[in-house]
Amino acid sequence: MEDREYIIEGRNPIREAFRAGKTIDRLYVQEGLTDGPVLALIGQAKKKDAIVDYVARERLDQMSETGRHQGVIAHAAAYEYAELEEILRKARDKGEDPFLFVLDGIEDPHNLGAIIRSANLCGAHGVIIPKRRAVGLTAIVAKASAGALNYTPVAKVNNLSQTIESLKKEGIWFAAADMQGELMYDLNLTGPIGLVIGNEGEGVSRLVKEKCDFNAKIPMTGEIDSLNASVAAGVLGYEIVRQRLFAKRKAGKISG
Amino acid sequence: MEDREYIIEGRNPIREAFRAGKTIDRLYVQEGLTDGPVLALIGQAKKKDAIVDYVARERLDQMSETGRHQGVIAHAAAYEYAELEEILRKARDKGEDPFLFVLDGIEDPHNLGAIIRSANLCGAHGVIIPKRRAVGLTAIVAKASAGALNYTPVAKVNNLSQTIESLKKEGIWFAAADMQGELMYDLNLTGPIGLVIGNEGEGVSRLVKEKCDFNAKIPMTGEIDSLNASVAAGVLGYEIVRQRLFAKRKAGKISG
Repeated sequence: MEDREYIIEGRNPIREAFRAGKTIDRLYVQEGLTDGPVLALIGQAKKKDAIVDYVARERLDQMSETGRHQGVIAHAAAYEYAELEEILRKARDKGEDPFLFVLDGIEDPHNLGAIIRSANLCGAHGVIIPKRRAVGLTAIVAKASAGALNYTPVAKVNNLSQTIESLKKEGIWFAAADMQGELMYDLNLTGPIGLVIGNEGEGVSRLVKEKCDFNAKIPMTGEIDSLNASVAAGVLGYEIVRQRLFAKRKAGKISG
Repeated sequence: MEDREYIIEGRNPIREAFRAGKTIDRLYVQEGLTDGPVLALIGQAKKKDAIVDYVARERLDQMSETGRHQGVIAHAAAYEYAELEEILRKARDKGEDPFLFVLDGIEDPHNLGAIIRSANLCGAHGVIIPKRRAVGLTAIVAKASAGALNYTPVAKVNNLSQTIESLKKEGIWFAAADMQGELMYDLNLTGPIGLVIGNEGEGVSRLVKEKCDFNAKIPMTGEIDSLNASVAAGVLGYEIVRQRLFAKRKAGKISG
């Protein structure tokens, strides 16, 4: 990740950044825009002592990395990667079994953003990505995460296999998404868990898969080969959510 | 424009496309043009249910790649749309309860492609999209569908509410994805079903939601508002798959 100023584009991502208490240094607003959502952002910016700059649309187009700035671009401090320990602490602080998304080489920023978004809503404590052969936390990722990057920590590690190895010693089990695996409904995914999702083209790499405790299969009845990576991550993540919920209901902790 | 193979420019080429039976999604006509050949094209477009957009000459100039649009540009579908009846027949032929994805205004072609991909692998019989305020079957959609468009029929309808109304008479129940709805695990989604997914920003529109039998909620425990639309479609689609599978297992048709 480059350590230059971070750019946040679009109305929802900027609103989420303010809501999450992120420091916005400067807000660029397209000249002539006076609709409610934009005025609300300007109000927020002034309240937080950010500088507001009114610029021509062409200027925003030039600054934009996603091509979808919706008339507003904010400069904020860079998104920082979290430490692994921070993610584990988050689980401990909540008194929950750790629930991690481990991404073995996701290359498409839209997929990475959508997965961070799913991780947030599944109640996962964080996301782990490798340093190499994977997209980092770019502006497109931030936008696709719809604000989730402000809440869900993302750690970047040198070697996924080694990280999995050391987390297993802390009692976390790892399930790899794998079309040759066992049907996800038939696995017990209720304990401390790391869900491992592979690269868009190749799936989970051999070395990483060898470290995993289970291979989990999503049932597929159609003619094509595989789901979109972010959809597969969401479906598997929600199977973990379901199993945990059903286990709690069975234990009588939640009625109904 | 990325799907340039499917842009047709100029009067003769567009007339030929209509004559050849190509599906034209949209016809752009330069404002103020009322000569005979242009009116004939507009007539053809209306007859074939294409949307006609009147735009400034500058807009056409921007869209044009040949620089010789002669005041008319057409967008042709990369794939042919199916008839609704074809989708229902597919379910009947397989002896299965109909399982449809109904998309109320998906705008992002990557999302539409990913949803068609999920529909294929969930074993759904087809996808229904509306004519207006939604992306059609462009080349980007085809690519994002990873081949699913070759197997999973997509029907385009004039009015989603009316289509739902008439499909309900055939015994199909409709479940709308809705954050205010009932938890999806607590609904019975095992019968003939249409899963209704809303637009990326607004969700399912009021008129369409009013026609639905259930509102299905995906549990969300994080800080942000909503899942990516294609992830939500996948998670809900797979909840239907799970319920059908568990019902079969319970009935003893599948051991396990």
